[in-house]
Amino acid sequence: MKILVTGAGGMIGRKLVERLVADKTLGGKAITALTLVDVVDSPIPDGAPAAKSIVTDFSEKGVATTLISERPDVIFHLAAIVSGDAEANFEKGYKINFNGSWALFEAIRLEGDGYKPRFVFASTLAVYGPPFPDPIPDEFALTPSSSYGTQKAMTELMLADYSRKGYLDGVGVRLPTICIRPGKPNAAASSFFSGILREPLAGKPAPLPVGDDVRHWFASPRAAVGFFITAATIDTAALGVRRSMTMPGVSATVGEEIEALRKAAGDDAVKLIQRTEDPFVAKIVLGWAGRYAAELATRMGFKAEKNFDEIIRVYQEDEMGK
Amino acid sequence: MKILVTGAGGMIGRKLVERLVADKTLGGKAITALTLVDVVDSPIPDGAPAAKSIVTDFSEKGVATTLISERPDVIFHLAAIVSGDAEANFEKGYKINFNGSWALFEAIRLEGDGYKPRFVFASTLAVYGPPFPDPIPDEFALTPSSSYGTQKAMTELMLADYSRKGYLDGVGVRLPTICIRPGKPNAAASSFFSGILREPLAGKPAPLPVGDDVRHWFASPRAAVGFFITAATIDTAALGVRRSMTMPGVSATVGEEIEALRKAAGDDAVKLIQRTEDPFVAKIVLGWAGRYAAELATRMGFKAEKNFDEIIRVYQEDEMGK
Repeated sequence: MKILVTGAGGMIGRKLVERLVADKTLGGKAITALTLVDVVDSPIPDGAPAAKSIVTDFSEKGVATTLISERPDVIFHLAAIVSGDAEANFEKGYKINFNGSWALFEAIRLEGDGYKPRFVFASTLAVYGPPFPDPIPDEFALTPSSSYGTQKAMTELMLADYSRKGYLDGVGVRLPTICIRPGKPNAAASSFFSGILREPLAGKPAPLPVGDDVRHWFASPRAAVGFFITAATIDTAALGVRRSMTMPGVSATVGEEIEALRKAAGDDAVKLIQRTEDPFVAKIVLGWAGRYAAELATRMGFKAEKNFDEIIRVYQEDEMGK
Repeated sequence: MKILVTGAGGMIGRKLVERLVADKTLGGKAITALTLVDVVDSPIPDGAPAAKSIVTDFSEKGVATTLISERPDVIFHLAAIVSGDAEANFEKGYKINFNGSWALFEAIRLEGDGYKPRFVFASTLAVYGPPFPDPIPDEFALTPSSSYGTQKAMTELMLADYSRKGYLDGVGVRLPTICIRPGKPNAAASSFFSGILREPLAGKPAPLPVGDDVRHWFASPRAAVGFFITAATIDTAALGVRRSMTMPGVSATVGEEIEALRKAAGDDAVKLIQRTEDPFVAKIVLGWAGRYAAELATRMGFKAEKNFDEIIRVYQEDEMGK
């Protein structure tokens, strides 16, 4: 089995590749070749099968065709520019997040000759924008309130159409907010959801720009990798025409995050959280949903953590060597 | 006020242009220029203001920029290839129905300099595919079961994003099945909905390929023109982020259509309907919804007929000179 991963140099991409190399198989078949693509270098883990890391922009002309000419059996398409970048750079967002995905779809269709790979697409809950009900049901309209969400929603539609026509076998995975993200705090509005746990767990202070009652939808990096593996191996006949799914997650408030931190690391850790209200961040976060039904994905076997205790434990095991 | 109409040579396009010329104004402003575009010649009605008819394919490079450089205040974008054509010719469908629309959006954005026209987009109920509830609520997911519906749904998403960013002021109009279509029967699976009324009203026989209990969603050509006029003149601030709307219509069964024909033209007309079951057509039609909530459009002032008696009367007035 040959596998192509785009966005393989990103945080989730790297963890997905590590898991594939550790598993040695996908859906019961031996992994024989691994092609990793990103605009930055994608590390190749020790013990990988025939693997290559290609630094390229897959939205450039001809790149998709070259990548697809090797006929990977499974494609994990994670490459994208992030929400803030797509909002600030309108043309670039459409070029990479939409045209880049379309170029891959077209390369697959034009390859033809019975070639029909499993195509796992990393989508986003940013396909939903307010106003929305609580929880958001699986069949709620996609009404993105960002260019990033629009580009992902358009790609979801196209993924379904190319699947319906039999050109590929697509599964779209709408990821929850990933928590606890390893590494340093970043400029994303959602950064604090991880920061208020990760930094105190390392004995460092962390700002909290919103109130305790803010509710959001979370899964660990390990769960996200699991979603992609599941998406690559489910029976898509059971999915029918709905090719993209909201992933299950933990619905929790900031207050519940903090109580989980208290259980894991005590009052001293909680004291490192510094309440510094930021109306700008608070306004962005209020546009995000706190709960999703995620019934189809749950029925299809996608699994997230059950609560924040588990999310913290995953971080301690995977990132702190505990 | 300058107006651009794409697809101006089609049945609805011609009627829209006739209405604009007859009204002389749009939203209280005098119409000073009218540009009609289609791949066929668009007739210019008598009494039109400075009008030109351009035969071109707006999806070809440079055409959109040229059309937009005249800075029309209102754009009615009706041009599209139909469902069957888009299904049979995959690349052509995306090129015209999707890339063609995008080319117009981009030409508008790049025109810049404060230019922000009202953009009325002719969408379709084919953005919905089964399974769906009855009626389909306004906020149901777009799950098209055709490439045509996919291309229209993608364009709806883009229309909303370009509107959100302030590049244009978009309103998408999802048309019901237009009934009674004037002219001859055609190859469309939906042709019989009009045929079983139009042909008997002219003393001619008409085939009926489905059962009496088939329910569908209808509006007259006159109502469709009214939808576009309303879309061009509503206050979009009240619309918010939902830029595309399912239009109101008459939900009726084939049996109800037939009873309306009986009232309008008697038993002899009804006897001209020839029941000739066609499982192929019946299967296609079963994938269509019979009822939509259409609450937002109704609230925004869009108006369809109330029943099939009215739909028949509109046909008699507009096409039979009664």
